[in-house]
Amino acid sequence: MSDFINTPLVGVPGSRTRMATPALVIDLPAFEANVAAMAAHCAKHGLNLRPHAKTHKCAEIARRQIAAGALGVCCAKLGEAEALGAEGIDGVLLTSPVVTPFAIERLMALNAKLDDLIVAIDNPENATALAAAAEAAGKPLQVLMDLDVGLHRTGIAPGDEAHALARQMEESPHLHFKGLQAYAGHLMHIEGFAERREKSLAVMKMLGDMRDRLEADSIACAILSGGGTGTFDIDVEANVLTELQGGSYVFMDKQYNDVDGPDGRSLGDAFQTSLHVQMSVVSNNTPKLATTDAGFKSFSTDAEPPVLSDGAPDDAKYFFFGDEQGGIMLSSANEKLALGTTLTAVTPHCDPTVNLYDAYHVLEDDMLVDIWPIEARGRSA
Amino acid sequence: MSDFINTPLVGVPGSRTRMATPALVIDLPAFEANVAAMAAHCAKHGLNLRPHAKTHKCAEIARRQIAAGALGVCCAKLGEAEALGAEGIDGVLLTSPVVTPFAIERLMALNAKLDDLIVAIDNPENATALAAAAEAAGKPLQVLMDLDVGLHRTGIAPGDEAHALARQMEESPHLHFKGLQAYAGHLMHIEGFAERREKSLAVMKMLGDMRDRLEADSIACAILSGGGTGTFDIDVEANVLTELQGGSYVFMDKQYNDVDGPDGRSLGDAFQTSLHVQMSVVSNNTPKLATTDAGFKSFSTDAEPPVLSDGAPDDAKYFFFGDEQGGIMLSSANEKLALGTTLTAVTPHCDPTVNLYDAYHVLEDDMLVDIWPIEARGRSA
Repeated sequence: MSDFINTPLVGVPGSRTRMATPALVIDLPAFEANVAAMAAHCAKHGLNLRPHAKTHKCAEIARRQIAAGALGVCCAKLGEAEALGAEGIDGVLLTSPVVTPFAIERLMALNAKLDDLIVAIDNPENATALAAAAEAAGKPLQVLMDLDVGLHRTGIAPGDEAHALARQMEESPHLHFKGLQAYAGHLMHIEGFAERREKSLAVMKMLGDMRDRLEADSIACAILSGGGTGTFDIDVEANVLTELQGGSYVFMDKQYNDVDGPDGRSLGDAFQTSLHVQMSVVSNNTPKLATTDAGFKSFSTDAEPPVLSDGAPDDAKYFFFGDEQGGIMLSSANEKLALGTTLTAVTPHCDPTVNLYDAYHVLEDDMLVDIWPIEARGRSA
Repeated sequence: MSDFINTPLVGVPGSRTRMATPALVIDLPAFEANVAAMAAHCAKHGLNLRPHAKTHKCAEIARRQIAAGALGVCCAKLGEAEALGAEGIDGVLLTSPVVTPFAIERLMALNAKLDDLIVAIDNPENATALAAAAEAAGKPLQVLMDLDVGLHRTGIAPGDEAHALARQMEESPHLHFKGLQAYAGHLMHIEGFAERREKSLAVMKMLGDMRDRLEADSIACAILSGGGTGTFDIDVEANVLTELQGGSYVFMDKQYNDVDGPDGRSLGDAFQTSLHVQMSVVSNNTPKLATTDAGFKSFSTDAEPPVLSDGAPDDAKYFFFGDEQGGIMLSSANEKLALGTTLTAVTPHCDPTVNLYDAYHVLEDDMLVDIWPIEARGRSA
């Protein structure tokens, strides 16, 4: 595949500027620092870590997170779990409901293969279907109840119906009820720390109250899984979760760099930006303008445009110039970017950007040191 | 790969509602009608057709376009041309400049392999580099001059410098100068027909004038390549191009459906919408809301949100609900979409949506009849 055509450059000094572009590049020291920092954070607070692999979709990164102490990884989609499971990753928590009959068949095949798969459930009808499938398959399925703490995307609201659903799962001989999941995705990018903290603590209280209610009814909740990169420090203060699900901390992106941390620090002080897109100037005939080879197909477009990092004049700005190209606005007609100039940009939103590439190009300083396939890229089904 | 897991359903009646989702689906009769309509349009006006494969990225579709009379296909990126070339597609016009030393090496390898590769050039320095590489490789490279007709993305503006560049290419023994390319991407989505027509005809006049100037200087322009789906009817009126490059006509999308045709008709009257994303309801616990399995990773997000087509109540609206999910807003609390409900949506912008999937699921009525791999998916480099 052409994304892998840079392979001959692995280990060649200066090779980062000779790669096929656009390329998704990892700054290895920054990445390793992030993996270590979150592992140390969880260890310090006595919390488990099950980082969300929907961010990176890559078995090599999952292996490194697990080697640093993670229990396993979360996956958003069954296809992601299949792809990483095929690479030997276990301890997989599937955080989205698995609903259609065809998907349930695939889930049972995956459950047969993995030792420690857990899936989130938010609906009694779905719990009945999964229990029947697990019975037919002859192996119980480990499940969490997904609690809706205000996002309303998936999950069941805390209350009587949730209690009844937990009871149904607890009593099924074909489901092993393990506890609760909650993801407050609507709070992750609140830029002000005080507001994010207050709302996050309220969410954690909902989750803790539900756990208390279930445990008072003899329904044990061994796992309380949730949290995200945006609340990694608040979640430990709340002391409700047993494990953190944050994913974006390995890479960071423009969205998370804009989020404030405590004491006036930024989230970008806790974790470094380790992911960039490297591109090349391919046309430069118009004054105050250069065209690069990275457009809509090379960056996610759900957030703001990419922010240039290396290679461009300080005041240069990237704009999307269609599917295949990007424009670089220069502030002066005296500036000109030569054909072939290497530029990099911070990804606007890391997860959907990663989804556009088949591999990471791993860099140390000016050298391509490794290529990691993104096995779960595009596994949205 | 999990996108291909639907293979066992090929040819099974009713199978379209039993597929792994999200899935990118082609309505085969509509698609075939579009391929035939554009071929007939070009035949009627004595024009060649070299449809842009950046839309579909698929060898099977390229073969069908060529079988219907196309000369070959256009590719936006070298990686696309490599992927389709590996499947036996020839007559490839590479419409973007190939600039970096590494890309030029790959281009020479591709030129050695294909009988009829043409590449666009917009810069004398690049022409010199390509001529040197072609000389070293021992096979001349066919080239067009990319003319900037106002978009300023790539291309050289008509005038003395362009004339000199054409002269340079014409005189190089290692380049075979074939003519001109112009793409007025800034005009394609002007919704009003009269304005789009006036501006497009002005662009065609620029192109025709440049051809006349070069031919007066004994620089033959056998090929004048350009145009797009949005101007397919205007381009034939101008009578300047020798070949049309339109790509989106095979699928159409929300953007092109919003464009007016002549006589108050819409572009959607000329070509049918043949491409949709099929998704499933995976959560429905909140009144007036359902959650599907298709979010930012399943649709391009550079245009407006997807528009629901089949399976939802008439007044239901899709909204993006994060990376992995979509929300369906329902107008009444009495409506509820059952878990597993199959929904489809028109893609907002077809090209970057296609770039998210590994395969087309080809449908006839309610049946999955074929699966076509998207070989050039993600080949942005």
